[in-house]
Amino acid sequence: MRIVLVNANTTEAVTEAIRQQAAAVAGPGTEILAVTPSFGAESVESNFENHLAAVAIMDRVAAIRDPFDAVVLAGFGEHGKEGLAELLDVPVVDATEAAAHVACLLGRRYAVVTSLRRTLGRIRDRLALAGLAGNCVSVRATGLPVLQLEADPERAAQRLAEEAVLAVDEDGADVICLGCAGMAELASRVEAATSVPVVDGVTAAVGLAETLVRLYLQPSKAAYPAPRPKAITGWPLPSVPGS
Amino acid sequence: MRIVLVNANTTEAVTEAIRQQAAAVAGPGTEILAVTPSFGAESVESNFENHLAAVAIMDRVAAIRDPFDAVVLAGFGEHGKEGLAELLDVPVVDATEAAAHVACLLGRRYAVVTSLRRTLGRIRDRLALAGLAGNCVSVRATGLPVLQLEADPERAAQRLAEEAVLAVDEDGADVICLGCAGMAELASRVEAATSVPVVDGVTAAVGLAETLVRLYLQPSKAAYPAPRPKAITGWPLPSVPGS
Amino acid sequence: MRIVLVNANTTEAVTEAIRQQAAAVAGPGTEILAVTPSFGAESVESNFENHLAAVAIMDRVAAIRDPFDAVVLAGFGEHGKEGLAELLDVPVVDATEAAAHVACLLGRRYAVVTSLRRTLGRIRDRLALAGLAGNCVSVRATGLPVLQLEADPERAAQRLAEEAVLAVDEDGADVICLGCAGMAELASRVEAATSVPVVDGVTAAVGLAETLVRLYLQPSKAAYPAPRPKAITGWPLPSVPGS
Amino acid sequence: MRIVLVNANTTEAVTEAIRQQAAAVAGPGTEILAVTPSFGAESVESNFENHLAAVAIMDRVAAIRDPFDAVVLAGFGEHGKEGLAELLDVPVVDATEAAAHVACLLGRRYAVVTSLRRTLGRIRDRLALAGLAGNCVSVRATGLPVLQLEADPERAAQRLAEEAVLAVDEDGADVICLGCAGMAELASRVEAATSVPVVDGVTAAVGLAETLVRLYLQPSKAAYPAPRPKAITGWPLPSVPGS
Amino acid sequence: MRIVLVNANTTEAVTEAIRQQAAAVAGPGTEILAVTPSFGAESVESNFENHLAAVAIMDRVAAIRDPFDAVVLAGFGEHGKEGLAELLDVPVVDATEAAAHVACLLGRRYAVVTSLRRTLGRIRDRLALAGLAGNCVSVRATGLPVLQLEADPERAAQRLAEEAVLAVDEDGADVICLGCAGMAELASRVEAATSVPVVDGVTAAVGLAETLVRLYLQPSKAAYPAPRPKAITGWPLPSVPGS
Amino acid sequence: MRIVLVNANTTEAVTEAIRQQAAAVAGPGTEILAVTPSFGAESVESNFENHLAAVAIMDRVAAIRDPFDAVVLAGFGEHGKEGLAELLDVPVVDATEAAAHVACLLGRRYAVVTSLRRTLGRIRDRLALAGLAGNCVSVRATGLPVLQLEADPERAAQRLAEEAVLAVDEDGADVICLGCAGMAELASRVEAATSVPVVDGVTAAVGLAETLVRLYLQPSKAAYPAPRPKAITGWPLPSVPGS
Repeated sequence: MRIVLVNANTTEAVTEAIRQQAAAVAGPGTEILAVTPSFGAESVESNFENHLAAVAIMDRVAAIRDPFDAVVLAGFGEHGKEGLAELLDVPVVDATEAAAHVACLLGRRYAVVTSLRRTLGRIRDRLALAGLAGNCVSVRATGLPVLQLEADPERAAQRLAEEAVLAVDEDGADVICLGCAGMAELASRVEAATSVPVVDGVTAAVGLAETLVRLYLQPSKAAYPAPRPKAITGWPLPSVPGS
Repeated sequence: MRIVLVNANTTEAVTEAIRQQAAAVAGPGTEILAVTPSFGAESVESNFENHLAAVAIMDRVAAIRDPFDAVVLAGFGEHGKEGLAELLDVPVVDATEAAAHVACLLGRRYAVVTSLRRTLGRIRDRLALAGLAGNCVSVRATGLPVLQLEADPERAAQRLAEEAVLAVDEDGADVICLGCAGMAELASRVEAATSVPVVDGVTAAVGLAETLVRLYLQPSKAAYPAPRPKAITGWPLPSVPGS
Repeated sequence: MRIVLVNANTTEAVTEAIRQQAAAVAGPGTEILAVTPSFGAESVESNFENHLAAVAIMDRVAAIRDPFDAVVLAGFGEHGKEGLAELLDVPVVDATEAAAHVACLLGRRYAVVTSLRRTLGRIRDRLALAGLAGNCVSVRATGLPVLQLEADPERAAQRLAEEAVLAVDEDGADVICLGCAGMAELASRVEAATSVPVVDGVTAAVGLAETLVRLYLQPSKAAYPAPRPKAITGWPLPSVPGS
Repeated sequence: MRIVLVNANTTEAVTEAIRQQAAAVAGPGTEILAVTPSFGAESVESNFENHLAAVAIMDRVAAIRDPFDAVVLAGFGEHGKEGLAELLDVPVVDATEAAAHVACLLGRRYAVVTSLRRTLGRIRDRLALAGLAGNCVSVRATGLPVLQLEADPERAAQRLAEEAVLAVDEDGADVICLGCAGMAELASRVEAATSVPVVDGVTAAVGLAETLVRLYLQPSKAAYPAPRPKAITGWPLPSVPGS
Repeated sequence: MRIVLVNANTTEAVTEAIRQQAAAVAGPGTEILAVTPSFGAESVESNFENHLAAVAIMDRVAAIRDPFDAVVLAGFGEHGKEGLAELLDVPVVDATEAAAHVACLLGRRYAVVTSLRRTLGRIRDRLALAGLAGNCVSVRATGLPVLQLEADPERAAQRLAEEAVLAVDEDGADVICLGCAGMAELASRVEAATSVPVVDGVTAAVGLAETLVRLYLQPSKAAYPAPRPKAITGWPLPSVPGS
Repeated sequence: MRIVLVNANTTEAVTEAIRQQAAAVAGPGTEILAVTPSFGAESVESNFENHLAAVAIMDRVAAIRDPFDAVVLAGFGEHGKEGLAELLDVPVVDATEAAAHVACLLGRRYAVVTSLRRTLGRIRDRLALAGLAGNCVSVRATGLPVLQLEADPERAAQRLAEEAVLAVDEDGADVICLGCAGMAELASRVEAATSVPVVDGVTAAVGLAETLVRLYLQPSKAAYPAPRPKAITGWPLPSVPGS
């Protein structure tokens, strides 16, 4: 099967990092097609950037000509899954939700550790709407921007581990979710510091997407019906720089 | 004061209709500046169209050169408020939330009556995230598309009234919110049918925006901090048709 | 329009203070008629005093001969709105609810800072019943009695600011509600200390009441039907001292 | 032990009815002292009447000179427990809460069947604040006023049974609470119609009050501290007719 | 009446301790029949041990030949009530639920203080399923195993009091539940340290069971219907050591 | 990898049916080891039978000598996962939770359709404790016992489809979970009737178990720590018939 893995930001290095992480866990017959939006922000931290990304992701996926069996959205706490699900007939798995689903399978109460404080509300929102907030005891920020997490993995691992330890000791978490794309490499560091399982959203989403495909399950069109035909101006976005 | 009233779809007739409705309730010193996005769908019903609208609304508001004191988002159940709030230093009032806030001030349990069934989930999501789902007993669809509500007010009033009566009798609602921009004209018809107060989102949002301005209250930058400076490709969207 | 502003305690100085604060934010055509109950406690902090106030407020409002367009209940965390709403055909806006509604319009998560610890449960109750508890992260007490807040504004401002800072830093609030009548003057002090918007209940309630009146919205009689005619002994309370 | 049983309305016949019902279930050493408020409404159905009753009940209990070990509030869905609890050092058991507690001990999901639709919101409020709403599947009204329930027990039993059957069949209730004082006599009729246990609030409250007394448990003064000494005008209410 | 009091573990000394505590609060006509399961663990702390206990308790109660009026399950946070309730026609009162019900009658917000951290999740689960989690502010562990609580009451009282004080001061509890069988003796020590009421589950359950019996209330067979006749292998467990 | 698939009842035909269904969806390298408890009921419908099954399942899995990588519990709405998770160091995936997790990935709101009404409460309990109740709109019973579902697949498919259609049309479900082991064969029938995705718990659980194994994720020992060493009488159960 072929899984499209969509980075939410425009930084190719992140796309390549998550492609490798996804490929490392994918089953033998699974091809990972990692793509980068042709417009948007180099890292997605604000809602402003996130709304842009929602459109850019739809734009990018709509441009794929080869068939595929599922889509994985690699961003964390992102808007946009519902819109993409309306456009496609294959499962769309969001990394935020995937991490939380897998965390619930492993323990009783999970926490999320992420980049900047400004993303906390958005992550809580996504978990709440996905019906997954019940077992979430906290969402904590390291204070490190997304690209710094990528650029300085040593510092990233240290800060993630520190917050994860607090999530376990003070908030009562027994599973930790890493709340940012491209952090799969750091999971073992956080696991060593906390002695609890650590879930990376992108790899979790790839695993769940494979499961859905293997079970021949499609997204519900009662939940995500295709858009009705109507006059739309300015879509697709033909002339954005870089497209 | 000047309030920017943003239509979510690209149909100018809707913009004009809500402009008139807003002007009818605005206080003496309030100017309503109604604007239409320069790209997007003629009516916003799907999540796909709604993600487009979120960007198109940010795009359109960012292009306003004159100062303004508040923004009212006229769509119902729309994504996008958080992003716009990050870009601005003035209150951004969403019509969905405004209708529900006002409904809570008038009764114990409110219901929303809206256009198509496909919008129900999105509306419930917005109410839940705004912390307003507790007193909402139901969200009901008339089955009429947005533009048909505009085009055939007689039929619209009838179907809205029918569903509103069911919301009162079967769901226990004691206030009704009209869940679609441009329906203010129909409120009295629904009120006559149900004998409960009927709230229109756009006019409610204009009233709340005026209140916030008069109280000198700004949106919380702890909740909606300005985006950090970073490389963004393809924004603003310079060459979309119609911009 | 004329708005009746009802103090919950019998201290005339508080009535005068809130009258001035309300008048300062009211629109040009709005007259504030501030009234003091003719019996009850000099400050309302216990449930015992609050039940007395609920009756005293109904008693006092029922004695008003001039027409009015809305009532604002200035107490915070008070019982009694439902009863008064049954007796009247105009909007009754409670300051507790008003503060929370406005807070939700400004940010994601609000906190309330109030007088004594003993009032916390009652305030949480009111917010829960109004459907507004979802976004409330904490209700904190300064430990200062109501009249001391009035008498020593300097100390009041300091303690309110201290608790508000804790609400922001430890509880994650991004908006603060001042949980006591007559504290509007202190809002700017708390705002300076926290850098988040600070909402005063009385002024918020006046603004919302004006909005409801301007939108021609009445309270739902399905929610608050007039009492049925029946034998009532000892009402109105004719001979209470001071009446 | 002596238990004070307080009727919420001023109808002596109701006081006598509940006294008999309470006495029938009380243990051998338990004396029931049933009292009627000296002012208020002949039946309590509105919030207005209920706020009056809250004060009248405090007034009446404060006038009792003999020692007592617990108080049972016989009204259903009433305001006022918190205030009375502040004034006393003995358990105050509300019939609404008592019925729901006992129902939770007998099954998984309970429903309440009561008098008029106008009381539904108040009953739901009380259950929610008591932390007992989770297992409540519905609150249903017979449409019969309180005094008619008393006056025409045959019709009352029939309507209660009809609604109780709906609560079981449509709402999934497996226990029924009778939501009005003085209905204990009708429990067996409703039980015969539904084949599920039927709980009367007054008798349940008497049983729970006895348990608390026998366990030497006092109400929490951290939850219900005595009012602080302060100037109170018009309390006690010396000259209300009938006092 | 005769109440069967079932210890969840196989330690006879615990059975004797709870028997004495139950007898001390039981009414004059109440006989306490305390029984010990014939298989299982010497103390029940894990879910593994608890699942064993659920069966062992059903096995032990099924072996009782004399008639009885109610059953009290003395374990705290235990699985198994539902199964036993299906087998019997008399009330089955679980000590966990009983403690929480009584706590809700005494204050606004209760906390549970128990033995090991590993039991916290199970206790929270029981409270949630019983519909009693709403007013529970925390469940805290002393870190002392069950048998150590029995063996060293001095140390037990000290650690319970320490955690109870934290529950009051930091979590806002105004009632404390002792979350382990056999701790009734320690209640006064914890009460002295916290100045709030302290509820022991076993004695609370005995009191509630007596109330249900005196009110002639049976468990709902709609909630807990008798098992259907069917082929069961290995039940009753004829040859387990000790049976 | 090797996955142990545990039937909850003692009917070998059911074990064989679910083994085939599991094998049909398992990946190429996955071996399914299906086992039947050596004691317990021929079908598990009551809580009584379910408590027996919890122990019988632990007993049966503990007897497996070969290594395995994960366990799938095939029962629906069963007690017992927590205990087994304490005894093992590999993932334990419950079919109830698996179905709900997968349903959440496919739509917004799911319903469960199951065998007898008596199992509804138990299923709701499991979903609530797993943090998955938020998006569950209903749990519906066909009224058919478990073994009849197996014996008469035609009738089973018809009744399942009827209830599923009601779940979609009346409750608003957009995904259906089949709430009983061995119903995978019937999914396509229900899907044809409803036009929404239909999830079978056993096959979903096998897929999720494979994902967890491939991601090298272990259950949290902070959530499910191994039992402490202690005296246990009558375990393992050496002489139960058939063991």
